[in-house]
Amino acid sequence: MTISRLQTKRLAYQPLIPPALRDLSRVSLQHSGQRTALPEALCKIFPKTHPFSEWCLDKKSGQPGRPLKVGVLFSGGQAAGGHNVISGLYDGLIQIHPKNQLLGFLDGPAGLVENRYQVLTAAMIDQVRNLGGFDLIGSGRTKIETPEQFQAAARSASALQLDAIIIIGGDDSNTNAAHLAEYFLQNNIETRVIGAPKTIDGDLRSPDIEMSFGFDSAAKTYSELIGNIARDAMSAKKYYHFIKLMGRSASHLVLECALATCPNLAIIGEEKQTLAHIVANIAQLIEDRHAHGKDYGIVLLPEGLIEFIPEFKALIAALNLNLADEKDPQKVQKQLTEPHRSFFASLPEKIGQQLLLDRDPHGNVQLSKIETEVLLLDLVKKELKGRNIKIDAQPHFFGYEGRACFPTNFDANYCYSLGLLAALAVRDHATGVILAIKHLSRSPAEWEPKAVPIVQLMGFEMRSGKEKPVIAKTVVDLQSRAYRLFAQEQKIWRLGDCYQMPGPIQFYGDPELTDSVPLTL
Amino acid sequence: MTISRLQTKRLAYQPLIPPALRDLSRVSLQHSGQRTALPEALCKIFPKTHPFSEWCLDKKSGQPGRPLKVGVLFSGGQAAGGHNVISGLYDGLIQIHPKNQLLGFLDGPAGLVENRYQVLTAAMIDQVRNLGGFDLIGSGRTKIETPEQFQAAARSASALQLDAIIIIGGDDSNTNAAHLAEYFLQNNIETRVIGAPKTIDGDLRSPDIEMSFGFDSAAKTYSELIGNIARDAMSAKKYYHFIKLMGRSASHLVLECALATCPNLAIIGEEKQTLAHIVANIAQLIEDRHAHGKDYGIVLLPEGLIEFIPEFKALIAALNLNLADEKDPQKVQKQLTEPHRSFFASLPEKIGQQLLLDRDPHGNVQLSKIETEVLLLDLVKKELKGRNIKIDAQPHFFGYEGRACFPTNFDANYCYSLGLLAALAVRDHATGVILAIKHLSRSPAEWEPKAVPIVQLMGFEMRSGKEKPVIAKTVVDLQSRAYRLFAQEQKIWRLGDCYQMPGPIQFYGDPELTDSVPLTL
Repeated sequence: MTISRLQTKRLAYQPLIPPALRDLSRVSLQHSGQRTALPEALCKIFPKTHPFSEWCLDKKSGQPGRPLKVGVLFSGGQAAGGHNVISGLYDGLIQIHPKNQLLGFLDGPAGLVENRYQVLTAAMIDQVRNLGGFDLIGSGRTKIETPEQFQAAARSASALQLDAIIIIGGDDSNTNAAHLAEYFLQNNIETRVIGAPKTIDGDLRSPDIEMSFGFDSAAKTYSELIGNIARDAMSAKKYYHFIKLMGRSASHLVLECALATCPNLAIIGEEKQTLAHIVANIAQLIEDRHAHGKDYGIVLLPEGLIEFIPEFKALIAALNLNLADEKDPQKVQKQLTEPHRSFFASLPEKIGQQLLLDRDPHGNVQLSKIETEVLLLDLVKKELKGRNIKIDAQPHFFGYEGRACFPTNFDANYCYSLGLLAALAVRDHATGVILAIKHLSRSPAEWEPKAVPIVQLMGFEMRSGKEKPVIAKTVVDLQSRAYRLFAQEQKIWRLGDCYQMPGPIQFYGDPELTDSVPLTL
Repeated sequence: MTISRLQTKRLAYQPLIPPALRDLSRVSLQHSGQRTALPEALCKIFPKTHPFSEWCLDKKSGQPGRPLKVGVLFSGGQAAGGHNVISGLYDGLIQIHPKNQLLGFLDGPAGLVENRYQVLTAAMIDQVRNLGGFDLIGSGRTKIETPEQFQAAARSASALQLDAIIIIGGDDSNTNAAHLAEYFLQNNIETRVIGAPKTIDGDLRSPDIEMSFGFDSAAKTYSELIGNIARDAMSAKKYYHFIKLMGRSASHLVLECALATCPNLAIIGEEKQTLAHIVANIAQLIEDRHAHGKDYGIVLLPEGLIEFIPEFKALIAALNLNLADEKDPQKVQKQLTEPHRSFFASLPEKIGQQLLLDRDPHGNVQLSKIETEVLLLDLVKKELKGRNIKIDAQPHFFGYEGRACFPTNFDANYCYSLGLLAALAVRDHATGVILAIKHLSRSPAEWEPKAVPIVQLMGFEMRSGKEKPVIAKTVVDLQSRAYRLFAQEQKIWRLGDCYQMPGPIQFYGDPELTDSVPLTL
């Protein structure tokens, strides 16, 4: 298979890393003694791992010890930089001991459960350095939840005599990693479990995890496209572009892209506006711009918007609870109580159908199937009819374009550093931890690697009717500096065409262009 | 308005130009005597302009003469590089005579008809160099067709005492330019008319016009996204992505992007396959890949596919002719004769509705409104049901993302050179010509600028029931080297995952990355 010119060039890129990670023999990860007090209930579920404190880098030399055998897997959706976590991990392991071995479980956690893996060689690693995708070993969405699955994972780990497993994933996958680490300790299995923070959504954060990897690359890819479309809009002067961005549980990507491109309006799900308010706001924007002779514009919205809208949440709860099997809109309407009935009746027919027809196997409404941008467009057009304004609109959805793109230098550097750190964490016997690098907004020379017990990130949430310990998703904080800046600026963006065109991601030339960090960082 | 870092950088880019255009005082455009024999009918319509031969560069010095006044306008959809045509034109005019003046007609040909314009200053030009979009002066789709419109254009040209008007547009706009040049000569108006070849579709070509500008930038932007999605597909291993690319009358963009990204299948409209054959082909691809354990893939298709499908063409002709007002699918089906009736009945309900409901003001079916990717997906899924294969598919449409993007170095260089050439053509009194640069696949040092009488590109076509002289669109030639290479390679792409990831357009670093030319060139 031949590869493109840029692929060839990127394979040769040398990621920038914190100086401490240059020679792993001269540093070690040590318990800092730093511990957050945890709730009793959590300690009960994690008796073995909850007492651990966080791990920090120390100038004490580390010992290679006997050769190590390490497994790695991807869990969940793609995020640019995943291959670099593995490259860094591989290079780190070889640096520690030339006989260290890395194997990749295939197709995600399922590979661990089913003991399907591939021994990774230097030649394989050299084909994916600084390239996007998870194709080296694949990924999957299997969760290790049942006792049988835990036992199967333990069997694989024991059979392979693994010293550690690195799980590269988001909030759920790292929750899984915490359970697996605990399970292994309780069952005297000597395999450690270490997580790495991956997700383009940017919703896996903590005071130590300032940003998950992949977010920067996705945001910059979407921002390129939004900027291009904005330039088109202000040239053609005839279209409203409704651009939906991937991200179900948090609107970090919309906020980041809004700051990068200055659209006329960006809806942040966390504002929790009612549907009526959102529609009125967009209609007002269009009317105001029309009065200024501008019948075009850019509106950004998050994929998960519906999940934030209070009326929708309530309606869906009512549908899931009492009407899981009912598919006839007329009957549903009759059976719903107010205010759900009126709200359901106000929705465009197509959306009502999507709500009823696209149920999951348990009869639950599948929110991801609902075309939010089409819903809003329909309602806004209806609203505008009364005001005698007609618009021509184009819906867009950007998601898959930015998950497996070439990682930006930021993500390439960050991920490679996470990989080296993972090797160190394995050597120094950490388990139940998630890798973190602090001060990401500064240059890699100032980055501070550490490893944080995953339990310290956990709280309780209702899942399938039960209180379960999980890593809570970090949503957009309406008090944050980034959001407040956005809210302030957006007032000017409504009428002024302040569009920014960030353009395509650049890898060479002025570091100002190539090495910029996310704006919301 | 602040601008992005890349915008700031790109403003300072110095386009590469052919050496002959460096000092316009040392060259001139001269009639070469080279003429193609034209049909009698065409000569009758263009009595004044048909005798002209093409213009070539000559080392004879040119004279600045008295200060010139020149108008410029954009016509039709955006194409990256338009601002550079104007920058080159402006710089060329000032180089020829510091008192030369350039004004831009606003919002396309309508600006000329309505005498709405803006005098362009150095400060304005300096804000758009090497940037995408047509926002400096806007664009529009008005055609100058009626006698009143010709008279109004003549009035504007005379009132402003314009020496020339540069029309930056596609095939129709350049046909318009030819008529306007002829009309001005016939009516003793001293304004010359010169065209520049713009269109992302790439369907305005001739032996001299090897490529229209904007094509390269659009193709590279789409290829970036297709490559990213392909990497995602082979990582996630669960989706078929049906990617539709802009381009109604020709499939050049699909061919170019296919060669750049190696999808599993790309449908070239010019192959004129029947709908049944296309559906069977895609279904077979999916079945074959399924047998190899691959339930994912990438399929490219052109926006204008339907216009190439024989059954659709015939059905639409029948609908337009006899059933322009009928909106009830049942009644339409009854009234259609065979084979149209069966074909109509075989279409998904939604598509049947789109055919009937989305008519233009004359009752004609609006092909652009038909969601080709959804149609194909529906039919393919139906076909696969019989074979017991289920796929999960994502439709995409890329268009607006690539029309107003940052021009690639190729388009920036090409357009700036076209602009300089336009200034020269004005000084040397060319009219009724379209600007051309030969040997575009070589470095700008070897480019050969010339100007070709537009009538030499024209032939006759039926338009609104009448034979009219037009520049015929150049569609994909199934005998061309590029198509034959594609057809050969595609056999391997079907099962092998040969995806290429060209990545985002690069502007700095190795010229191999930054200065590549279109593959189909």
